[in-house]
Amino acid sequence: MTEHPAATAPGAFDAARSGEIVAASLAGTADPRLRELLTSLVRHTHAFVKEVGLTPEEWAAGVDFLTRTGQKCDAVRQEFVLLSDVLGVSMLVDTLAHPADGAYTESTVEGPFHLVASPPRALGDTIDEAARGGDPCLVTGRVTDGDGRPVAGARIDVWQADADGFYDVQRPGEVPERNLRGLFTADGDGRFRFRSVVPRYYPVPTDGPVGGLLAATGRHPYRAAHLHVEVSAPGVVTLTTHLFVAGSPHLDSDAVFGVKESLVREFAEVDDAERAAEHGLPNPFRHVDFPVTVRREG
Amino acid sequence: MTEHPAATAPGAFDAARSGEIVAASLAGTADPRLRELLTSLVRHTHAFVKEVGLTPEEWAAGVDFLTRTGQKCDAVRQEFVLLSDVLGVSMLVDTLAHPADGAYTESTVEGPFHLVASPPRALGDTIDEAARGGDPCLVTGRVTDGDGRPVAGARIDVWQADADGFYDVQRPGEVPERNLRGLFTADGDGRFRFRSVVPRYYPVPTDGPVGGLLAATGRHPYRAAHLHVEVSAPGVVTLTTHLFVAGSPHLDSDAVFGVKESLVREFAEVDDAERAAEHGLPNPFRHVDFPVTVRREG
Repeated sequence: MTEHPAATAPGAFDAARSGEIVAASLAGTADPRLRELLTSLVRHTHAFVKEVGLTPEEWAAGVDFLTRTGQKCDAVRQEFVLLSDVLGVSMLVDTLAHPADGAYTESTVEGPFHLVASPPRALGDTIDEAARGGDPCLVTGRVTDGDGRPVAGARIDVWQADADGFYDVQRPGEVPERNLRGLFTADGDGRFRFRSVVPRYYPVPTDGPVGGLLAATGRHPYRAAHLHVEVSAPGVVTLTTHLFVAGSPHLDSDAVFGVKESLVREFAEVDDAERAAEHGLPNPFRHVDFPVTVRREG
Repeated sequence: MTEHPAATAPGAFDAARSGEIVAASLAGTADPRLRELLTSLVRHTHAFVKEVGLTPEEWAAGVDFLTRTGQKCDAVRQEFVLLSDVLGVSMLVDTLAHPADGAYTESTVEGPFHLVASPPRALGDTIDEAARGGDPCLVTGRVTDGDGRPVAGARIDVWQADADGFYDVQRPGEVPERNLRGLFTADGDGRFRFRSVVPRYYPVPTDGPVGGLLAATGRHPYRAAHLHVEVSAPGVVTLTTHLFVAGSPHLDSDAVFGVKESLVREFAEVDDAERAAEHGLPNPFRHVDFPVTVRREG
């Protein structure tokens, strides 16, 4: 027969102190940063449950939602990232990590479509190999540092949706692989230029639990039209951002809260046959200039 | 060529106001309760991210953890419930839903092992058909309402781990199906009694992401020894609770925070050959009495 010492239950549960009780159980966490993260997470989670008076039925619905979200994920679909995106958490984390300080080009989320490496292309080339229509455009820019000095040889990686709102990987077999992607190298003055079509706004995937959440909250699934830009160079903090098309629908309600005002640019119409011919574009065409200011490391 | 109205971005992202910006996007939620829940959830989530300064790498680790948690779930395993359990959220939700008020028997979590219906048994029967050892015990009790009146014919559903810390469903083929489960009907005075063995403490499953979390936080995975009890009757609010074995290891650190002091009871040793024979038990045996006070509906 086993020994049975006197009953004690100093850890007994108490709703009023629940956050403290659980936080106390984390005191033995070896990694101090993990302890800090979990303690804050537990306190906020318990505060949320108490603030709303979460019922067992609502709790069960939440467990079911999270389970379905995890089970929707596979090699090419990340539903938890999408959930983080549509709740603005991804943008918050990105913005905290890359404060703009007014002096530098602002960042935004990378998104899920950078899974294909962009093909190296020469300055002035088009990234629109499919040429399936849309407004032709010229993108120009210059990469400088915080002191206004050019970043010679900076690498500019760009990718975008087409004029119908689809990325190449969403149209396998229909468009050339790596269509509307390009890796450019700036010249000695930090300048770059390439040809493309104006991207269209498009919906995030809505066939999973997050699509259900958007529908239940009366939100549309669209991202405002944008061109992804990633700028890197030795000794420079890599910048991942978007160039948003001024006037695009959904700029004021981007599904992932990716829009920052400084990143919205006019894709202005240019009616100039000589310039069009110079760049190998039909006339008229659209033109956007995107000066990029990056941060030196250290 | 499409129309391009003037650029406006009133929804532009701003880290300082991120919680408010996302909360505002939920204004169109048709169900007012869902709007309330999501608004509070978003505010707490953004406050957490800012409070700790969550980095992109930590965010990615969190996404990976949640994804693995969802993918660990199947028909007989619910890793998100386990996560909720070890963070004390399940107990909090249960306790908010069933305030004890001092007058009623306190509730605790149902746990994941009630997936098998308990077999009806006669008062006084044993639920230990396997008889594989352990301390024999007698469980007695009486179901009354808040005014002390007996609840005649109340149904008492019990299930427990064996003396090695395993439920029947964890030992298929080794023990009779539905071993250590029983559904009893109280007599006209609300009284019930049955025979069993003293349950042993046992670990929650540790082969998934939640097991990794427990290890990283230096927490053991054990639940203090307990007997599950669910009491129901027409016109009565169903009570789901545990009877904890006084003196069990881990009463002060139950992995799911299930312990409430009022639910810890002595399984006292009785050395009385006459009483033992009366109940069909060896001498000595253990005895616990569990008076249950339930709430009338309305």
